[in-house]
Amino acid sequence: MRRCATPIDFAPMSESLPASDGLLAGVTSPGDLKRLDAEQLTLLAAEIRDFMVAKVSRTGGHLGPSLGVVETTLALHRVFDSPRDRVLFDTGHQAYVHKIVTGRQDGFDMLRQRGGLSGYPSRAESEHDLIENSHASTALSYADGLSKAFALRGEDRHVVAVVGDGALTGGMCWEALNNIATAKNRLVIVVNDNGRSYAPTIGGLADHLSTLRLNPGYERVLDLVKDALGNTPVVGKPVYEVLHAVKRGIKDAVSPQPMFEDLGIKYIGPVDGHDMVAMESALRRAKGFNAPVIVHAVTRKGYGYRPAEQDEADCLHSPGAFDPQTGALTAKPSVKWTHVFSEELIKIADERLDVVGITAAMGEPTGIADLARKHPERVYDVGIAEQHAATSAAGLAMGGLHPVVAVYATFLNRAFDQVLLDVAMHELPVTFVLDRAGITGPDGPSHYGIWDMSVFGAVPGMRIAAPRDAATLREELREAVAVDDGPTIVRFPTGSVPADLPAVRRLGQVDVLREDERKDVLLVAVGSFAALGMDVAARLAEQGYGVTVVDPRWVRPVPIELTGLAAQHRRVVTIEDGIRAGGVGDAVAAALRDADVEVPLRDFGVPAGWHPHGTRAEILTSLGLTAQDIAREVIGWVSRLEADTEPAQA
Amino acid sequence: MRRCATPIDFAPMSESLPASDGLLAGVTSPGDLKRLDAEQLTLLAAEIRDFMVAKVSRTGGHLGPSLGVVETTLALHRVFDSPRDRVLFDTGHQAYVHKIVTGRQDGFDMLRQRGGLSGYPSRAESEHDLIENSHASTALSYADGLSKAFALRGEDRHVVAVVGDGALTGGMCWEALNNIATAKNRLVIVVNDNGRSYAPTIGGLADHLSTLRLNPGYERVLDLVKDALGNTPVVGKPVYEVLHAVKRGIKDAVSPQPMFEDLGIKYIGPVDGHDMVAMESALRRAKGFNAPVIVHAVTRKGYGYRPAEQDEADCLHSPGAFDPQTGALTAKPSVKWTHVFSEELIKIADERLDVVGITAAMGEPTGIADLARKHPERVYDVGIAEQHAATSAAGLAMGGLHPVVAVYATFLNRAFDQVLLDVAMHELPVTFVLDRAGITGPDGPSHYGIWDMSVFGAVPGMRIAAPRDAATLREELREAVAVDDGPTIVRFPTGSVPADLPAVRRLGQVDVLREDERKDVLLVAVGSFAALGMDVAARLAEQGYGVTVVDPRWVRPVPIELTGLAAQHRRVVTIEDGIRAGGVGDAVAAALRDADVEVPLRDFGVPAGWHPHGTRAEILTSLGLTAQDIAREVIGWVSRLEADTEPAQA
Repeated sequence: MRRCATPIDFAPMSESLPASDGLLAGVTSPGDLKRLDAEQLTLLAAEIRDFMVAKVSRTGGHLGPSLGVVETTLALHRVFDSPRDRVLFDTGHQAYVHKIVTGRQDGFDMLRQRGGLSGYPSRAESEHDLIENSHASTALSYADGLSKAFALRGEDRHVVAVVGDGALTGGMCWEALNNIATAKNRLVIVVNDNGRSYAPTIGGLADHLSTLRLNPGYERVLDLVKDALGNTPVVGKPVYEVLHAVKRGIKDAVSPQPMFEDLGIKYIGPVDGHDMVAMESALRRAKGFNAPVIVHAVTRKGYGYRPAEQDEADCLHSPGAFDPQTGALTAKPSVKWTHVFSEELIKIADERLDVVGITAAMGEPTGIADLARKHPERVYDVGIAEQHAATSAAGLAMGGLHPVVAVYATFLNRAFDQVLLDVAMHELPVTFVLDRAGITGPDGPSHYGIWDMSVFGAVPGMRIAAPRDAATLREELREAVAVDDGPTIVRFPTGSVPADLPAVRRLGQVDVLREDERKDVLLVAVGSFAALGMDVAARLAEQGYGVTVVDPRWVRPVPIELTGLAAQHRRVVTIEDGIRAGGVGDAVAAALRDADVEVPLRDFGVPAGWHPHGTRAEILTSLGLTAQDIAREVIGWVSRLEADTEPAQA
Repeated sequence: MRRCATPIDFAPMSESLPASDGLLAGVTSPGDLKRLDAEQLTLLAAEIRDFMVAKVSRTGGHLGPSLGVVETTLALHRVFDSPRDRVLFDTGHQAYVHKIVTGRQDGFDMLRQRGGLSGYPSRAESEHDLIENSHASTALSYADGLSKAFALRGEDRHVVAVVGDGALTGGMCWEALNNIATAKNRLVIVVNDNGRSYAPTIGGLADHLSTLRLNPGYERVLDLVKDALGNTPVVGKPVYEVLHAVKRGIKDAVSPQPMFEDLGIKYIGPVDGHDMVAMESALRRAKGFNAPVIVHAVTRKGYGYRPAEQDEADCLHSPGAFDPQTGALTAKPSVKWTHVFSEELIKIADERLDVVGITAAMGEPTGIADLARKHPERVYDVGIAEQHAATSAAGLAMGGLHPVVAVYATFLNRAFDQVLLDVAMHELPVTFVLDRAGITGPDGPSHYGIWDMSVFGAVPGMRIAAPRDAATLREELREAVAVDDGPTIVRFPTGSVPADLPAVRRLGQVDVLREDERKDVLLVAVGSFAALGMDVAARLAEQGYGVTVVDPRWVRPVPIELTGLAAQHRRVVTIEDGIRAGGVGDAVAAALRDADVEVPLRDFGVPAGWHPHGTRAEILTSLGLTAQDIAREVIGWVSRLEADTEPAQA
């Protein structure tokens, strides 16, 4: 079972919450920071931490990452001149401190709530914000473009990008660094190195960073050389021995040589990211170069708030409401979709030795960590690297295994080409489990998992399952890993899993959930919208319509049974928790056309647009995806149809 | 104008074509190579080059890359034991030599022709082939997965991946290296470093590789230290002077220190990739490690065939048929879609200083190189890095510019998430120009540009234009760069641009190409399928149907005029050069539903599947996308409709 769902026994944090005396209230823009002295800044940093813990303990939010960048953010806003200079935060959940010092303290009472402050930078909120999305590893690419534009237009402005060591494992950062090195524009990259993404950062890069952290470069080899030269008379001793010692020294030194300099990017560091004076000095040096510079800041995730610092399982990365004294989550434990998946996956893996798990730095949030605890040799954390997750899964499958890649639905978009060509074109048995599918909520539009059924629905040979409850999740996961000739997707939403909704009968692979005698409307309810479909049906029945409700279980390819059922009804309605364009509605409509079943159809789903954050229920309501709205729409449509069943003539 | 379209004045290559005496005929499997001595191998390499030049000069194909890896491939197959050991070629067009020595010489007469040998590895062709796709930078990820599977299953097999320096600029390689370093499995990575992808490889990595090439590591610093120690008596001289010299030496040496070792991957090289003895020895050393190793092979693209070696514009990377004596292309010059785009883009850029170009290592093939020759400071080649191309374009747009990203349609799939969130969600004016859209031909399914209208059609705010001829390409490109509040796509096919097809009239943004008095069928013909649509209409008219043919010009969002027109007709037919799932047909059908226009619709496009290579015409014919087939289908459908217009009842 997941460790974050239950209260955690942290030590009380009284000494981390000193009394605040209002320096923070006087900071309404970055300019105000420039008037503070070192002592005041230290006090301010403590106040900011208290402020964030107090606010986020009520609203929930990305606490851990923001606690780690307090001093870095203050130093950045003292050294640079935002918004003239541009400060870009990779994975915007590091930006709370930035929001606090750019005039948005008041907004934190409504953080991530409908109509309230976004959990990410937001251009609508502030001229200090420029990039809104939350997918990792993008900021360096934006920064490269922006600094090129400033250079081409002859604008004397700086670009600063703050990127975590975790995000550096993403390939986009490599592509960007490669370009930044060549462009040679003024660009400061702050690597916020806390050794973690969600999980501890993995890979060769992480090892390299940690070597750098422990072992600051040239100085060490010079000591070694000095020892070699100082302790033995060189004249009269075979030169090769000295050389050998030097060589050994070089080899030791060469390892911690920052690889960034190999690319041609100046490196400053490592700097203690919680030492404001050191950070400010490093940033001023970096600003002085007329070329790209990396400032390597070593920080601690959750710094200054003991429950978050001691938070091995990273429950305070982005908690719901919690007790600020103990860090214990206050939400009642409930069974989440993720738990059900994780439990069933472990059972499957116990039975089948060829089943392995892959996560892209999200072991705990996707539940794959549970499998890793039981079968550590059979789980691979690839870093924030969805492309590699997909294609290395293809390699694993070529090697005779059945990989289960567990990822948030929104993040699989980053591997579309890899899923299409590397997995599907090779007809490889890889199962992608998409957690947080559909409208998610407080993280806003960049985190909605609404694209998968549309985009991956266009992948030839892809099979997509959308379970409606715990029982069907277990069942469809097993069906997915039983497929041995191509890729499968199993997608489910965020949050608590609803009570099981049993079928009246199963027709082929389709579950019939309700059946009236009259066949007025066939209602195809996708996945977690099954209960919504039942509500719609009840409302239609009240108006005298006979309704059949089905859960297709597998939405791609469209089950053949659906066309047969549709032909028995006068109207078809589909409802799905995904973008309409190219979604299940479109696919069912196409299947009916191909089968010469000319029954009118209406599809309900997420309309095109960038729908603002809120709770899942609030957003669905705003999109008209409620039983009341859908029933009203269907009744209106059917009435219009019946009034005028003939197509208009010219 | 493009330089490859006209014959090139190369020096004759007589000395590169020695008489062949049949060693090659005796090589039908890798085992045969192991029986040859060094002298024979040299002869064989020459024979293979002659063979490839002779064959590819007739069929066309990826000549340049394969000429560069002759010795490497022979050495690989002598040192490793394929298919037990697995040899993976990144960007499979390097694999001709591999095909030649694995029993497929006979197939080269039909290279890339329908029913003939694939231009890429193909599992159907040989047990020595494992990965089929041609998108760059993927092989290391496959290799990581495969070597993990071998390790987990306790199989004693080696994995070798051959990757170009150009491909290393792609982020996937970084993600893979980061994982490979940690996994510590037996995996040999051959970096085939010819300093080019299509264009010369760019970026910090390229500089680093070229430093390594010129400057082989430790030896040099040891020489420097030796000089410092040897020329001056150390005792009695201030130690710091010696140290200073050592430090200088280290600094010089540290720059060429292979950055791969920073990640924890053993590095061997540089090795002359055309010296078979050296390559074989390096590979044997690499094989001996029980850990990941990089072998850095320095090669020359087109090596051994002077026209290809001297080929600055890289016309012989993948030529059509050519004269083997001179390298001059034999095809008659014709005006390509690419030329029209390139010409118009230069005109636009002359008028608008804010328009800049981006290419992902494909300057010449996409025509962006022409803009670069005229305005070098306004074109950015980002390497094989489509993700960075998209997001750095977002940054450029944030900086006040209008970037035009020119890319093959198939490759934009790699940046779906970046186009969705980084560009579209930020409503940034970036124009993506998709060359080689639709069914392309001899490169096979991984190069077909059939996904864009479907996948990017699901991106909110995206506008997609599909010009039908040169005039509309110029016009729609101008309309696209005039959009200032969101992304645009202009997509066109490969090959020669057809004669202009003028409209009868323009209705809003829709071009009406044909109009009969009777309104039986509205035929929506997308982009280059306009002429096909006219043919279909002519055939329907012969059968007595009245047909209106329209080119919507912009297919996303669906023009409002289409629903109005549809309401005036009895039937709607759409035809498009893209995957049906989520394509224009689905979008038009959805628009009709939303407008309560219940007119029956049929959509024609590319069905789901992995359709094998051939000429574009052959493939379209095999898919039923001919005027004859479509007209027959439409007539059958309409007849069935008229026989039974009522939906079936239960």
